[in-house]
Amino acid sequence: MTTLSPLVPSVFETVESEVRSYCRAWPVVFERASGSRLHDEHGRPFLDFFAGAGSLNYGHNNPVLKRALLDYLASDGITHGLDMSTTAKRDFLEAFRATVLEPRALPYKVMFPGPTGTNAVEAALKLARKVTGRETVVSFTNAFHGMSLGSLAVTGNSAKRAGAGVPLPHATRMPYDRYLDGAMPDFLWFERMLADPGSGLDHPAAVIVETVQGEGGINVARAEWLRGLADLCRRHDMLLVVDDIQMGCGRTGDFFSFEEAGITPDIVTLSKSISGYGLPMALCLFRPELDVWQPGEHNGTFRGNNPAFVTATAALDAYWRDSTLRDRTLGRAARVEQALSELCGDDGRTALGYRGRGLVWGLEFADGERAAAVCRRAFELGLLLETSGPYDEVVKLLPPLTATDDELDEGLGVLTRAVRHTAGRAAS
Amino acid sequence: MTTLSPLVPSVFETVESEVRSYCRAWPVVFERASGSRLHDEHGRPFLDFFAGAGSLNYGHNNPVLKRALLDYLASDGITHGLDMSTTAKRDFLEAFRATVLEPRALPYKVMFPGPTGTNAVEAALKLARKVTGRETVVSFTNAFHGMSLGSLAVTGNSAKRAGAGVPLPHATRMPYDRYLDGAMPDFLWFERMLADPGSGLDHPAAVIVETVQGEGGINVARAEWLRGLADLCRRHDMLLVVDDIQMGCGRTGDFFSFEEAGITPDIVTLSKSISGYGLPMALCLFRPELDVWQPGEHNGTFRGNNPAFVTATAALDAYWRDSTLRDRTLGRAARVEQALSELCGDDGRTALGYRGRGLVWGLEFADGERAAAVCRRAFELGLLLETSGPYDEVVKLLPPLTATDDELDEGLGVLTRAVRHTAGRAAS
Amino acid sequence: MTTLSPLVPSVFETVESEVRSYCRAWPVVFERASGSRLHDEHGRPFLDFFAGAGSLNYGHNNPVLKRALLDYLASDGITHGLDMSTTAKRDFLEAFRATVLEPRALPYKVMFPGPTGTNAVEAALKLARKVTGRETVVSFTNAFHGMSLGSLAVTGNSAKRAGAGVPLPHATRMPYDRYLDGAMPDFLWFERMLADPGSGLDHPAAVIVETVQGEGGINVARAEWLRGLADLCRRHDMLLVVDDIQMGCGRTGDFFSFEEAGITPDIVTLSKSISGYGLPMALCLFRPELDVWQPGEHNGTFRGNNPAFVTATAALDAYWRDSTLRDRTLGRAARVEQALSELCGDDGRTALGYRGRGLVWGLEFADGERAAAVCRRAFELGLLLETSGPYDEVVKLLPPLTATDDELDEGLGVLTRAVRHTAGRAAS
Amino acid sequence: MTTLSPLVPSVFETVESEVRSYCRAWPVVFERASGSRLHDEHGRPFLDFFAGAGSLNYGHNNPVLKRALLDYLASDGITHGLDMSTTAKRDFLEAFRATVLEPRALPYKVMFPGPTGTNAVEAALKLARKVTGRETVVSFTNAFHGMSLGSLAVTGNSAKRAGAGVPLPHATRMPYDRYLDGAMPDFLWFERMLADPGSGLDHPAAVIVETVQGEGGINVARAEWLRGLADLCRRHDMLLVVDDIQMGCGRTGDFFSFEEAGITPDIVTLSKSISGYGLPMALCLFRPELDVWQPGEHNGTFRGNNPAFVTATAALDAYWRDSTLRDRTLGRAARVEQALSELCGDDGRTALGYRGRGLVWGLEFADGERAAAVCRRAFELGLLLETSGPYDEVVKLLPPLTATDDELDEGLGVLTRAVRHTAGRAAS
Repeated sequence: MTTLSPLVPSVFETVESEVRSYCRAWPVVFERASGSRLHDEHGRPFLDFFAGAGSLNYGHNNPVLKRALLDYLASDGITHGLDMSTTAKRDFLEAFRATVLEPRALPYKVMFPGPTGTNAVEAALKLARKVTGRETVVSFTNAFHGMSLGSLAVTGNSAKRAGAGVPLPHATRMPYDRYLDGAMPDFLWFERMLADPGSGLDHPAAVIVETVQGEGGINVARAEWLRGLADLCRRHDMLLVVDDIQMGCGRTGDFFSFEEAGITPDIVTLSKSISGYGLPMALCLFRPELDVWQPGEHNGTFRGNNPAFVTATAALDAYWRDSTLRDRTLGRAARVEQALSELCGDDGRTALGYRGRGLVWGLEFADGERAAAVCRRAFELGLLLETSGPYDEVVKLLPPLTATDDELDEGLGVLTRAVRHTAGRAAS
Repeated sequence: MTTLSPLVPSVFETVESEVRSYCRAWPVVFERASGSRLHDEHGRPFLDFFAGAGSLNYGHNNPVLKRALLDYLASDGITHGLDMSTTAKRDFLEAFRATVLEPRALPYKVMFPGPTGTNAVEAALKLARKVTGRETVVSFTNAFHGMSLGSLAVTGNSAKRAGAGVPLPHATRMPYDRYLDGAMPDFLWFERMLADPGSGLDHPAAVIVETVQGEGGINVARAEWLRGLADLCRRHDMLLVVDDIQMGCGRTGDFFSFEEAGITPDIVTLSKSISGYGLPMALCLFRPELDVWQPGEHNGTFRGNNPAFVTATAALDAYWRDSTLRDRTLGRAARVEQALSELCGDDGRTALGYRGRGLVWGLEFADGERAAAVCRRAFELGLLLETSGPYDEVVKLLPPLTATDDELDEGLGVLTRAVRHTAGRAAS
Repeated sequence: MTTLSPLVPSVFETVESEVRSYCRAWPVVFERASGSRLHDEHGRPFLDFFAGAGSLNYGHNNPVLKRALLDYLASDGITHGLDMSTTAKRDFLEAFRATVLEPRALPYKVMFPGPTGTNAVEAALKLARKVTGRETVVSFTNAFHGMSLGSLAVTGNSAKRAGAGVPLPHATRMPYDRYLDGAMPDFLWFERMLADPGSGLDHPAAVIVETVQGEGGINVARAEWLRGLADLCRRHDMLLVVDDIQMGCGRTGDFFSFEEAGITPDIVTLSKSISGYGLPMALCLFRPELDVWQPGEHNGTFRGNNPAFVTATAALDAYWRDSTLRDRTLGRAARVEQALSELCGDDGRTALGYRGRGLVWGLEFADGERAAAVCRRAFELGLLLETSGPYDEVVKLLPPLTATDDELDEGLGVLTRAVRHTAGRAAS
Repeated sequence: MTTLSPLVPSVFETVESEVRSYCRAWPVVFERASGSRLHDEHGRPFLDFFAGAGSLNYGHNNPVLKRALLDYLASDGITHGLDMSTTAKRDFLEAFRATVLEPRALPYKVMFPGPTGTNAVEAALKLARKVTGRETVVSFTNAFHGMSLGSLAVTGNSAKRAGAGVPLPHATRMPYDRYLDGAMPDFLWFERMLADPGSGLDHPAAVIVETVQGEGGINVARAEWLRGLADLCRRHDMLLVVDDIQMGCGRTGDFFSFEEAGITPDIVTLSKSISGYGLPMALCLFRPELDVWQPGEHNGTFRGNNPAFVTATAALDAYWRDSTLRDRTLGRAARVEQALSELCGDDGRTALGYRGRGLVWGLEFADGERAAAVCRRAFELGLLLETSGPYDEVVKLLPPLTATDDELDEGLGVLTRAVRHTAGRAAS
């Protein structure tokens, strides 16, 4: 592979802020993309097991969605609509109701809180506090919910938190499923604090949880743990907020990641793959009795990103009218698990373990350096992978749900080679 | 005009949250838009003096930008790019440097903080606190900076603040220009507090200001007041943040609204019209010595909305390579001012006054009811206008910068009629 | 004067914390005291124009109070009583009602919040927030209300605030009377913020004010300003809290310092001279309709300091059954004012001005160094004086109310000499 | 027993705030006290197993201390001294050094933070935050540290917390020893959070702990748990603050309650019995390298309560020059334990268990009603007892350390009878 660092500093280096990060790991300039592959400006292809951090469940520039988007734009459909009623929004709401809400008997009202995940989390927490008149929100170890102050307060990562520059109050942390490796019965500490008027835990407005912690290291909550949490919330009058921003939209198989557990959260946040095309869009869903907002009490300039509504509608129509995609995702989970199992069984490669659901998987290493080496080597071999976890010690597999069997095998093969190639380095 | 309320509740009423607002004022379903006009689903046209709350400075679906966008999407250019280097981002950065930064000798680094205004404000405040190690930020009466907790804390509107459900600390309010109608010399209170170790004002990290307060009621700061503020910040070691989200991108004539005053803020936020096409995009600009971010310390899923980079680049190329647009905007300011002056001079119409710069103007009424009546009547007459100000008492004129002379005259004519038609109602 | 610094470090230097302060200004070891004088361990007398920072309005070891205290202790009266009913508490409550409340037609309930000023302020603010359900409290520039976190948040002094180690939220500062030297009409900024729903001022629970700011530099609020403030509170539904800890108990003439203005605060805090003997004791008084405390909701180990109740009762009996003390204090105000006027009229001594009420006066110098030099010289000449103000630039006169005419003249004479003696140093 | 409620409301009912509490449980008016007994105004004696909530370890009006106090007052010793050097303070510091610090090889500096427990806790937390530059303080379930905002934030009791009227931030709760009944290894959760950069626990400045939680229900930490905590603090660079306000001064046998565990806290707070006579006094002790206070950075009007210094010195001289009191206290622990053991062994009395150390013991009942009934009956039988614990379900035994054997037996006998007498009521 030829060197990618130019002799003359690029505009990225001279003008873009030091806060940039992915471009450091993947030092090429990407130009186009299609399905499971990106191409750099020299035409070099990369297989994408990163999928826009979960924003591209249907692949890059999915042709069905692309057609709908191009037609809409060409016809001068509304592009920017704040929260005006538009035909594109109506189509989306009707499709969402027919395809997502009604088949699951979910009674949710739909809020457009602004087009990013953190907008949705901020809206969810504001609503939970407004409804209950309480301030404390419980979140979990290694949770990730966003970068604005309200969301950051319920996020665990200390490096992200350090960026706030102010204290991050009104949040209490509880151990995520298996955080203490079974050393304490589930929810014992949480329930004891709730029951004890001397515990110092001010009665929480809500609990916010990811069913699988993506940024936190692909930590997978068991269905019974999620049911236990939902039950705890009900018994102690706390709203249950599922942040399904990364794990929703089919990533774990079902449209919502919490369906497997058979629970119905009070509030759900969606973003990333909801537009289906990588366009900014987010939703906040909640039980109708929680819809106590005053008109405009929460707003935002881009809450009506109509081109995203168009692709979102097309995605619902294409992938969620039947269970084909869901079933395929669940089937592929077995294939990925098998590959990771073999990889971990192969001595000397230092992967400590693997875990996942649907098409989100993590391969854990002893430290972040090894995981980074694996990702670097994979990149050299043409595969995009990122790390996650508190020490960046987990290689995260997030292929498009629409990847072909061959692409899936190809990616797993490259991963296997990258792990092998870096085994020696790690030992040194 | 026929009734627009259907007998059967629409999906907007049954599924969308009560938080929706603009759709209540304009009870039609919009379908397409072009230039200065929107059309509802029945083909009825509306002249747009609202412009996406300042997001559509170049009009709806501007054909130059549209061409670039369609070509990019058709060619499978990268859609979702996080902060990967892409050709679309490079083109934007180069155009922004060549067209905006270098001609103005502005040394800024460019950060992509997530694609909405509140993302940019959160990033700006985090950075100011991180750089200075201080927590307090000074903002102004009737400021509007966004809905996430960090931005809401520096926003004045009590109805918006009430949605937070938690206290909004670390912010101190100062009077905006002319807030006290000249009853106190500019900055006397602010400077006295800064100078006095007993004042109780913890030394601020930064001051955040809009040069014209859009949501706050079209309050226009004088150039000398802005210079005084910049000077105060320099003398007292506070970072000056100009939130140019609504007033930037040519709304007041110059690309940045602060150019007229000849000041150079330490940090600038841009969003709304930066993409030019109404697509979600935001920037945070700052002096290079402030670029102390760790890689990824602030992040966000949609900070690399590449289609928006494409339209942004096209907009810079089309409108900011010379001073044509700027000069036209400044020329039209005189035309609008003349019309509003006549409207206010006409006794019995109860407009209390007008104010503005470039193509942002406000017409103030005695109360919000009258202003709402004017907007309702204008809507019936085919013109979209919204109110702003603490009591929603100011009718806000925000036409596209690309509106034709005829469109401008048409809108001003409708406004005049709407004011006249509602004069009787207000008197009752 | 012989040197007072021993060759061998004292236990004060080796064991006591560096936080100690007065002992640095007055490097002697005091042993006994009586009336207006303290004596050090070598028998050297010092005239006391400091009076325990206002805790010794009736002088040191006042014989009337001393007799009552010794009798009580000798008879094994209850010493420590928490909030048990005791005869000593009953006597105090009856005397306070008969001597203080009923003659002034004040309807207050009496709370024993713990025996220090900051306990009383914390209780007052908790109650105001509990009653109103709001969080913000307005305090004034250069206010001093105490060192615990709740009180410190409404205190202005930056050096004190810096000790908190955490942000001090929920407080908003307003300019004290004459803070802006008349450059703005009284309360214009405050009232404008209250009236404007876009100002960013969350509706305050309460306003806390000192009628004369002792630590803040002997800033004397005019009666009409206090009346204006009381009126503002009433019109805007904010509780008015007068912190009369330093200025109450006759310091300004009347028992309460706010009587002159003819206002009735909703809540009043008292401490310092309420026990009359320098024993720790504090009260929080409030309108009966505010008495919404649950039993024990605020408590404290030493809230029933019965020996203090005994001396407090004796002080009320001795000094507040008629207007003798009050009238004498008001008469002496004229005498002090006359002396300070002459001192300021005398060119070249660099005192900038003076101000005061009753027997609290301040003599302002150009800087803290000069004021400190005056106090140091006064100490050498046998007079105890301290400084106050944001720059410690004000020499504070706080003689016992029971000082004789000769003592008053003596102290004023020493002060005059100290100012003269230090004139040259200041010029250098 | 005749009724104690007068027909005419007393001044306590008409003038004192509803916040009063103990006087409701003990509806008599106390007049004098001596040793272990109080007498009401009718001469009726009560044996005191409450001891001023731990403020009267040496009994009421202890004659040795009384003599010293009367002599001091009679001789016109300094009463109120702020932080001036006085002979009384010197005597105290020298006695404290000689009697307490040097024999235990404790290197502490001594701070007089104001005369109440909450003053001392506020000072301790301010110092810990100032030294470390961090904000979070870890406290424990059912902790009680005081009523001012800084102390209340680390207190567990929800009824007390509700009085704050504002959020209580910067505190994180951990389970106290045996809180989860052994269901989790000690400190597993705490250590896991400290070690994990994704846990969401901002690195704490300090941990504050009581060795025995008095208000929390007489929860006794084991020595190995305290050692584990001290070790955890050292390994993770957190300051260890022992709040010894109620358990210090010999209550558990040793002067400091943490001596048994062999640990040396970084900061220690003392109050309650430090003056020995029930007079307000408090200390904050800390390692000399933590003494980073600026002069006067924390202050308070009554931090120099010299009469308290006199009785404190007398108490140290009388009780802490040898181990007599300590040994006697430890010996009596066995006697109390024996009595409580028999009481719990006796079926049908519904006491669930007992626990304690030295002369602080708790007898736990099924609910607060039963515990209150026991205390009411004990009062009728002439014994003062109070309840504690999150449900007020624990009867707390806190006799003076100076109680005679007969008094101890008498009190335990009355307690036994009170438990028996109330057995039927609880069953109903």
